Amino acid sequence: MPLHAPRRAALRAKLREQDLDALLVTDLLNVRYLTGFTGSNAALLVSAGSEEESVFCTDGRYLTQSQAQVPDLERVVDRPCDLVLAARAGRDGVRRLGFESGHVTVDGLDGIGRAAAGVELARAPGLVEELRVVKDDAEVEALRMACAAADRALVDLIEHGGLRAGRTEREIGRELENRMLDHGADGPSFETIVAVGANSAIPHHSPTDAVAKPGDFVKLDFGALVDGYHSDMTRTLVLGRAADWQRDLYELVARSQAAGREALGPGVDVRAVDAASRRVIEDAGHGERFLHGLGHGVGLQIHEAPALSKSGEGTLSAGMAVTVEPGVYLSGKGGVRIEDTLVVRGNAPELLTLTTKELVVV
Amino acid sequence: MPLHAPRRAALRAKLREQDLDALLVTDLLNVRYLTGFTGSNAALLVSAGSEEESVFCTDGRYLTQSQAQVPDLERVVDRPCDLVLAARAGRDGVRRLGFESGHVTVDGLDGIGRAAAGVELARAPGLVEELRVVKDDAEVEALRMACAAADRALVDLIEHGGLRAGRTEREIGRELENRMLDHGADGPSFETIVAVGANSAIPHHSPTDAVAKPGDFVKLDFGALVDGYHSDMTRTLVLGRAADWQRDLYELVARSQAAGREALGPGVDVRAVDAASRRVIEDAGHGERFLHGLGHGVGLQIHEAPALSKSGEGTLSAGMAVTVEPGVYLSGKGGVRIEDTLVVRGNAPELLTLTTKELVVV
Repeated sequence: MPLHAPRRAALRAKLREQDLDALLVTDLLNVRYLTGFTGSNAALLVSAGSEEESVFCTDGRYLTQSQAQVPDLERVVDRPCDLVLAARAGRDGVRRLGFESGHVTVDGLDGIGRAAAGVELARAPGLVEELRVVKDDAEVEALRMACAAADRALVDLIEHGGLRAGRTEREIGRELENRMLDHGADGPSFETIVAVGANSAIPHHSPTDAVAKPGDFVKLDFGALVDGYHSDMTRTLVLGRAADWQRDLYELVARSQAAGREALGPGVDVRAVDAASRRVIEDAGHGERFLHGLGHGVGLQIHEAPALSKSGEGTLSAGMAVTVEPGVYLSGKGGVRIEDTLVVRGNAPELLTLTTKELVVV
Repeated sequence: MPLHAPRRAALRAKLREQDLDALLVTDLLNVRYLTGFTGSNAALLVSAGSEEESVFCTDGRYLTQSQAQVPDLERVVDRPCDLVLAARAGRDGVRRLGFESGHVTVDGLDGIGRAAAGVELARAPGLVEELRVVKDDAEVEALRMACAAADRALVDLIEHGGLRAGRTEREIGRELENRMLDHGADGPSFETIVAVGANSAIPHHSPTDAVAKPGDFVKLDFGALVDGYHSDMTRTLVLGRAADWQRDLYELVARSQAAGREALGPGVDVRAVDAASRRVIEDAGHGERFLHGLGHGVGLQIHEAPALSKSGEGTLSAGMAVTVEPGVYLSGKGGVRIEDTLVVRGNAPELLTLTTKELVVV
């Protein structure tokens, strides 16, 4: 609970800046961030005034769970939570109620308006997301554990012979996911990508029954979920013996990835980070084969702000957790992507995914 | 492709009824239902006029995939898809454009309005969902396969000794999920519930490290995902030897569940189905220990229309796929839930989950 009260205090300061008496938080991840509640249905009314005027709502299925997870707020057990709390805001004399206009649907706003009769509703998009973009210590610790589960799973997979010619992408992916569970993951943090041979040239490839052959690239893009936080890592390995073109391609992407990591720092424009990494690949004549942005924020969502890309906006701050993941894809032949999860720090960024980035030949 | 064109034709008829020139479909499951596209970003503009005036949009990551999955519609590769298609509607002379007001956010509608300058925007909630509620043959076949994967996984789990005293809820759940993958599931259809002993009295219980003991109830609520369709089944077993109270409780829930199944039929009010099952439990004096609705629709979502509950609305039609899942929960002692997935038919409903509902003692 010491975790969540400071987050609500920070939100309260934002509400006052925006002249809102309260915010109706209906996005479930934002509710989780502000309260620690992990169930599938809840909403939260955060008063600009004080904790005592704030109210949490969930339904009867989560009576016991909410008592344990949200002991420090008034709790209402009723449904639908958004309307229950909108009505409550009206009864509590809220004049100006913010709502999450990036989450509330057009039809949903009608209901809220009827429930909060007489209250002025004000769009308030992204207020909690603005807080979430900089991770606090507890969040970084969860990310560390999620990244460690992925690191250890890959070590186990290799040490136990799980990466070998003759196995299918599906078999490799399933073993990798099971090994993450062995190391404390609650599940994979997204659909695991396993791409062998020419499939490695497809940036987002779902595992198939394609069989790994000697000399293949094996691209693994995977992550673990721990306490709601997502890790994200890509490694590209070679089975048996690496050809010269594979070593050259790998070395290029590794240099690009290092340039991206080195560009991370507080106050740096997100587009500059993308450019630092992309330039290495462009200089090698492969610019048009780097098909995606450099990276993205990670946290309670696998993809969240900030976007490190040509079209990204804003600058980095200490405490932001991001991926750095350049790739070069040679269609029909093979591709390499190398990806880490890192936290921006005052000096060098903190690397959370610790698996080697030397070319591994299994 | 023969699957999806008839669905779009049915939608087109609805658009004409509502005097809409076109519908902007932005909900990804609705796009999937209407096109077969399985990627993570897409939208669809369905013209009331013809297939030729309808347009599908996705982004560059899905260029190849969309060519294969959506060969029968004009495709645009650009982003953001909702705005690209809204602008296209304006250029194509659409006067009145419907949007999915139950999915489009308040901020999202602003963007659509700007992109479709000069076009009248009309709320059109639930049009595709109304079609989805009655499953066609291809959908029922996918549900059959999903239910079969779950049935077979449970048989394997029992035959290989996976259900035994000394194992944790987590271990049992993980083996069950892996065995569903062995039988062709793309994944579990929701977070598997394994609840041993007194935990079986918690309706929705996440697997923990609690260890199964002789004489325990083991409640398993799980399902498989096949081609995007979700199966849902609950069985409650006993380890070792069943006590009299366990047999009595089980027999009561089994009778209630049979009554619910027998009440299913075209034209029947959804509340009457709930009532038929609930009455058996109320007559036994346990009404207040049946804490939830009787069932829900299943399909591309694990929970979709119709709701079979006291607060449900509407009547059943042939082809609807629903669960029937009464439960009685004796707090601190143990609970029983028995759940099938079925398809409403003209005569008796078609049972898709075929595992026995006799009390199994392992």
